[in-house]
Amino acid sequence: MPSTSLDRSPYLLAARGEPVPHTPVWFMRQAGRALPEYRKVREGISMLESCMRPDLVVEITLQPVRRYGVDAAIFFSDIVAPLQFAGYDIEIKPGIGPVAADPIRDAAGIAAVRPVTAADVPYTTEAVQQLVSELGGTPLIGFAGAPFTVASYLVEGGPSKDFAKTKAMMHGNPELWHALADRLADVAIAYLAVQVEAGASAIQLFDSWAGGLSPRDYERFVLPHSAKVFEALKSYGVPRVHFGVNTGELLGLMSAAGADVVGVDWRVPLDEAVRRLDTPKPVQGNLDPALLFAGWEAIEPEIDRILDEGKKAPGHIFNLGHGVPPDADPDVLQRIAKYVQTRSAQ
Amino acid sequence: MPSTSLDRSPYLLAARGEPVPHTPVWFMRQAGRALPEYRKVREGISMLESCMRPDLVVEITLQPVRRYGVDAAIFFSDIVAPLQFAGYDIEIKPGIGPVAADPIRDAAGIAAVRPVTAADVPYTTEAVQQLVSELGGTPLIGFAGAPFTVASYLVEGGPSKDFAKTKAMMHGNPELWHALADRLADVAIAYLAVQVEAGASAIQLFDSWAGGLSPRDYERFVLPHSAKVFEALKSYGVPRVHFGVNTGELLGLMSAAGADVVGVDWRVPLDEAVRRLDTPKPVQGNLDPALLFAGWEAIEPEIDRILDEGKKAPGHIFNLGHGVPPDADPDVLQRIAKYVQTRSAQ
Repeated sequence: MPSTSLDRSPYLLAARGEPVPHTPVWFMRQAGRALPEYRKVREGISMLESCMRPDLVVEITLQPVRRYGVDAAIFFSDIVAPLQFAGYDIEIKPGIGPVAADPIRDAAGIAAVRPVTAADVPYTTEAVQQLVSELGGTPLIGFAGAPFTVASYLVEGGPSKDFAKTKAMMHGNPELWHALADRLADVAIAYLAVQVEAGASAIQLFDSWAGGLSPRDYERFVLPHSAKVFEALKSYGVPRVHFGVNTGELLGLMSAAGADVVGVDWRVPLDEAVRRLDTPKPVQGNLDPALLFAGWEAIEPEIDRILDEGKKAPGHIFNLGHGVPPDADPDVLQRIAKYVQTRSAQ
Repeated sequence: MPSTSLDRSPYLLAARGEPVPHTPVWFMRQAGRALPEYRKVREGISMLESCMRPDLVVEITLQPVRRYGVDAAIFFSDIVAPLQFAGYDIEIKPGIGPVAADPIRDAAGIAAVRPVTAADVPYTTEAVQQLVSELGGTPLIGFAGAPFTVASYLVEGGPSKDFAKTKAMMHGNPELWHALADRLADVAIAYLAVQVEAGASAIQLFDSWAGGLSPRDYERFVLPHSAKVFEALKSYGVPRVHFGVNTGELLGLMSAAGADVVGVDWRVPLDEAVRRLDTPKPVQGNLDPALLFAGWEAIEPEIDRILDEGKKAPGHIFNLGHGVPPDADPDVLQRIAKYVQTRSAQ
């Protein structure tokens, strides 16, 4: 492969553990409600509809790149979007989250879940292709939800604090659980494959809520399915990033599942996070999003600390420890991006 | 002190790290909505009112002891109850949680928060005295919320997922934060002192949400205030238990704050938890409450594992890793209590 500006972009260099001109930075959920321009284009348009309109996906994905000057774009989508595209009845309710019409209780419920094919989602292919063309040297990260986190919505019927029904299925009916998680691995694989084949330069698999599980449960009930996703995407040769909040106990296992880069929330310093991986790998993170509201005097030393701790990793992609809160001030995010890029280039 | 049946109760023996006839067991939030007899006596009576009526506090505290045969009772209260008793305007909304009328933003807000005196809460003294008399050889655990968790409700105005305003205050206005947390330490000390002086045999300080903090933030902003609470209660000579969910990264610090017993959620096995403490101490936990819904076949091996792992600690008090869910089946809890007591006595 010839070395292009994209191939030598700070994000991809860091994700491969190669030397970088500056520490790359982007923000999880950077395309979202914190941006007035996002709220404007989404007005009166449902999440599902916006995910099916290439013009909107392109615009929304590009907005934070323009505004913040971040080193990567992430494909605008939702973890349940590929289920919806394939006809599964789940709604993303504003202010609540995904709500399943018919929570999964048995094998018949699983039958309604199917992976997309490229033919199902021409709008996804079109949006990715156009984004790659417009982004030039800035990489586009493909997006999908991991089997456990997606399953939790399908089994609980909506957002949950304790995942009681999901864990009850794991322990009480492991066969059913594994069938569901395996199906959801196929859903993630198919959706990510469409994005990578259309030109995405990396993928991030979000297992946002995996931190609710003990390492024992994670290893037995979740790891095999996330590993299937990573393995299936290996041949594409793009960096595979894995992230969940509250995963201090799980970092080694999530890494062992086959991630090339491991995302870390704010609870574990990056130098300690690297020690917990199965083998040293690049890491992503990990400014506490709550700090966005604490004033620049409080933010700057935290960035300095995180950049220092990140030097202990083979590669560091700066990010928040979780998604951008909807009420964050875009000016603060812009200042953080600029500061990370400038400070780390010194 | 002469050796009484109370003094030789399995709970107090385990909390002191002495040999036990069986592993003691109780359940956090054992007095609560999972019990039909609780729902009945609470009908039409607000949380605050029920906390101010000794007859109700006694009845509700005793209900799970009767029903489950647990080895300890915990004083029925709420973490914001002592604030209410002292005139602070905060309401416990059913299905939501504590909601503050006037969230704290400045020093004037803190002035409205004051510790109770024994004279403020004759109903608390009366309820504890009557409970101790009725409980006989079963210990009563005193109850209070820790400064951080209580502060989070006062600063956010209600329950929060990310504690953004609380963390913003810590980092953006540390002086104000420390003044508030110090005041809330006094609130906890005063409320626990009333309970211990009326006869409670142990205390548990709930820092339920401390796990939202990084160890760095915990150590700087929270530990000194929780340590003040433990230090103030030291001279009473009763075991002091400390608990929060999601505190895998914080166990050593929470222990170092001055706890005699450290509660552990389901994410960290008890043998590993003991290794994380500043010095080996008795531990409490740690069955995942979600397992209550998974069927006995799934529960029994988990109890066996936890009892085995607990043997690595100087003492083990069996409990859930968090509170009893409102929709838990009391028969399952009863069976767990019986099983723990029988199995561990073999």
